[in-house]
Amino acid sequence: MFSGQHLLSVQNLNLEAINELFTVAEVMRPYAKREKMTRVLEGAVLGNMFFEPSTRTRVSFGSAFNLLGGEVRETTGLSNSALAKGESLYDTAQVLSGYSDIIVMRHPQPFSVQEFAEGSRVPVINGGDGPNEHPSQALLDLFTISNELARIGQTMQQLSLTFLGDLKNGRTVHSLCYLLALFPNIRIQLVSPEALALPQKYVDLLSNAGHQIEIGSNLEKGISQANIIYQTRIQEERFESEQEANRYKGYFRLNKKIYSDHCLPNAVIMHPLPRDSRNDANELDNDLNKEPGFAIFRQTDNGVLVRMALFACILNVHKQISDSDRSVNWQVGLKPK
Amino acid sequence: MFSGQHLLSVQNLNLEAINELFTVAEVMRPYAKREKMTRVLEGAVLGNMFFEPSTRTRVSFGSAFNLLGGEVRETTGLSNSALAKGESLYDTAQVLSGYSDIIVMRHPQPFSVQEFAEGSRVPVINGGDGPNEHPSQALLDLFTISNELARIGQTMQQLSLTFLGDLKNGRTVHSLCYLLALFPNIRIQLVSPEALALPQKYVDLLSNAGHQIEIGSNLEKGISQANIIYQTRIQEERFESEQEANRYKGYFRLNKKIYSDHCLPNAVIMHPLPRDSRNDANELDNDLNKEPGFAIFRQTDNGVLVRMALFACILNVHKQISDSDRSVNWQVGLKPK
Amino acid sequence: MFSGQHLLSVQNLNLEAINELFTVAEVMRPYAKREKMTRVLEGAVLGNMFFEPSTRTRVSFGSAFNLLGGEVRETTGLSNSALAKGESLYDTAQVLSGYSDIIVMRHPQPFSVQEFAEGSRVPVINGGDGPNEHPSQALLDLFTISNELARIGQTMQQLSLTFLGDLKNGRTVHSLCYLLALFPNIRIQLVSPEALALPQKYVDLLSNAGHQIEIGSNLEKGISQANIIYQTRIQEERFESEQEANRYKGYFRLNKKIYSDHCLPNAVIMHPLPRDSRNDANELDNDLNKEPGFAIFRQTDNGVLVRMALFACILNVHKQISDSDRSVNWQVGLKPK
Repeated sequence: MFSGQHLLSVQNLNLEAINELFTVAEVMRPYAKREKMTRVLEGAVLGNMFFEPSTRTRVSFGSAFNLLGGEVRETTGLSNSALAKGESLYDTAQVLSGYSDIIVMRHPQPFSVQEFAEGSRVPVINGGDGPNEHPSQALLDLFTISNELARIGQTMQQLSLTFLGDLKNGRTVHSLCYLLALFPNIRIQLVSPEALALPQKYVDLLSNAGHQIEIGSNLEKGISQANIIYQTRIQEERFESEQEANRYKGYFRLNKKIYSDHCLPNAVIMHPLPRDSRNDANELDNDLNKEPGFAIFRQTDNGVLVRMALFACILNVHKQISDSDRSVNWQVGLKPK
Repeated sequence: MFSGQHLLSVQNLNLEAINELFTVAEVMRPYAKREKMTRVLEGAVLGNMFFEPSTRTRVSFGSAFNLLGGEVRETTGLSNSALAKGESLYDTAQVLSGYSDIIVMRHPQPFSVQEFAEGSRVPVINGGDGPNEHPSQALLDLFTISNELARIGQTMQQLSLTFLGDLKNGRTVHSLCYLLALFPNIRIQLVSPEALALPQKYVDLLSNAGHQIEIGSNLEKGISQANIIYQTRIQEERFESEQEANRYKGYFRLNKKIYSDHCLPNAVIMHPLPRDSRNDANELDNDLNKEPGFAIFRQTDNGVLVRMALFACILNVHKQISDSDRSVNWQVGLKPK
Repeated sequence: MFSGQHLLSVQNLNLEAINELFTVAEVMRPYAKREKMTRVLEGAVLGNMFFEPSTRTRVSFGSAFNLLGGEVRETTGLSNSALAKGESLYDTAQVLSGYSDIIVMRHPQPFSVQEFAEGSRVPVINGGDGPNEHPSQALLDLFTISNELARIGQTMQQLSLTFLGDLKNGRTVHSLCYLLALFPNIRIQLVSPEALALPQKYVDLLSNAGHQIEIGSNLEKGISQANIIYQTRIQEERFESEQEANRYKGYFRLNKKIYSDHCLPNAVIMHPLPRDSRNDANELDNDLNKEPGFAIFRQTDNGVLVRMALFACILNVHKQISDSDRSVNWQVGLKPK
């Protein structure tokens, strides 16, 4: 399904492909946790082309490739590149695809990565094309939902998901909607200020999939029945006025008290990160950090698993991972003093 | 010839050295095409020091080193480096040469790389010192000419080369002239606006080498007998006025119609890249992309071969490449859906 | 001692730990000199996170990790990172520590690396937290002192050390004081303009350790009995006026004549680099470059040994280095033409 193909969008994925990918992602877990190591991609080269800077996603893709034994060549930023001198994305792709076995590309323009892929002679993974798509994020979000449900003894059939915050501008929420539409009969709560409601296009997508949708702006009601809460950042700069923005300030805040008072006992909290931790952010308080359901760092760790799986499936080595198994010979993690 | 030496200029190369290098470059082809892999430089470290940004050349050198099994440490940009605090190139070289086995250096100042090399304890490859030299580009251009001639069943003895465009400012054309001067009896056509003619110094170099030179500004005439056409960008910003620049606009344009009407059937088109593909560039049209003679991406692919060969020859591993041969275990390139 | 621990400061190190580290650093020498190679960290990933740019230190850490066989993921600069969007250092650490086995972090804010380490799930090495600490520099300085003394047939017991220049603002001098306080009975000369004297805190630290301290501003007297001279840059911008700065201009200059006239025959010259080599810098003249006691590039080379040792000890592979020994198969360094 993935072998020798681009991954440009989540919109052409089906459940079979996703299940295959997630199975491989689980195979990757002991390697990512350093219980053992593999050199299956030794000698392979990733072109990690970030024409828009991003520490988190760039390093996550690069580390995932390294964990499979491959090498990473990188670029960050657009200003000095040949693209700035009028080179077409087609030409850039022709050139760069002569330098690597697979390319991850991020670019600020929507659909630029698709255009780039048409000129590439090697598979291209969309690492984010501006406001359009960021498929590996959607996949790691879905993988996390599925994993977290399993952790609390539940399945996708029992999913009750609350999207919380700025649902209008949150790219990760939109992409995740496409994947959720592949599953049957989910209960979905959309909680946002009216001005930041999920665009009708995505509401239709979800309801055409047969999901049960509740739309509202009441936090306590919206989170009360959810086993998964997906919080996003309130992007204050998009409100009409500061006054308007202030109306919602602290309204969609999750902290330990609200969580304890209104959520199901095992409710899982997710967030696409970065979380704004400045004093007046009122987003997702640090007092939640030790809650068992607080999954935002498990979510980012899952990103490595999903990206390893993408590389392994696209380069068709997913059945050879354990052929080059070794034990890890170094100290893993921290020791108590 | 290359072992343990710097490569700072093409001016001290002789035909024997070039032939040795190109023979090694051909040995590299199956590794670059991923028909097999080598780990001959496993454990070696390249210092890929780009004190002037360049995505294309930087990644090409880095990938070439990775393809031989080595590791790459990099820097991009000048502003925050110790050089900006008054450190001499000698000191920078002393320091950086303690960190790697070989260094590629690009720097905006002419002859800076030569100065740097005097302080280095490891071999230095000039990756471009401003308007002065860029030896690996000249070598990959010559390698491409030789290869493309072979592809159409001809040899260097039959070379009829047209340089087209801004021959005054094109560094790649100047460097290539030094290499062409090593060969006997080439027919060379120089086609440019008068204001952008090849400087007399290079015309003398070529005619002292015994080459047959025709100088003109008529595109159709200039390209009609060439088996290799080397197109460069018309650098409009260098003309005295926009009107003057506009005089030549579209004049040195190559497109499918001009190519079909005026060129030899198998004529090869080269370009140092990036090609300006904006609507009003009128440089090298995309409708040529599928022509068998359109060699600009084979040219950039050849850059990897030539750079692999440079590393292998300078580090003296070119006879051990196949000792660590392995087959490639991943999916190479794209699969049809 | 180091295994599975952060290295955030030199202040919690003891002599036993330092001796262990320096013993391992000596083991690293043949690997750094390319007499043999090791792949002991093959498969391990370093997160080389430079949220403040630094070519020298960044590449030194990265190369040290590569020389042990590991892979390096990097970031340089602060502006576009999630930190700039209000992400806490705790969150950044949680995320990044899921991507690597060990992290080196540089950051412009004092104590930021300590805060970061609290959120990290893997060991963190402080690569410099603004004006506060830079422990690997202090360690490589001490290692160099010990090595240079051995080279001239002396030991730490015979150390007579002159700190020369701007002792008020030189972070490297301050950190080194903490390490020197661990040794008994050193003769230390502090030579600086009064306005740039070593802060009393560090003078007390040294004298409480029982060291014999002489404070002055006379260069010739200050350097006359030293076997180690540690020169720093006079940071002219910190003087009250240009006139004031000019008073000292050339006063703390070391050149061949001053060195020959006033220093002990084998006196060693050290400098934390970069050395300002502009014409009016008057710091450390290039005519000293060939003196046997001129140790500034041995000092920077030692940085690689000490950083290799830190990685090996923290990741607890220091006893396995030679298990994966191989001979080096490439040309090491330059050959005479």
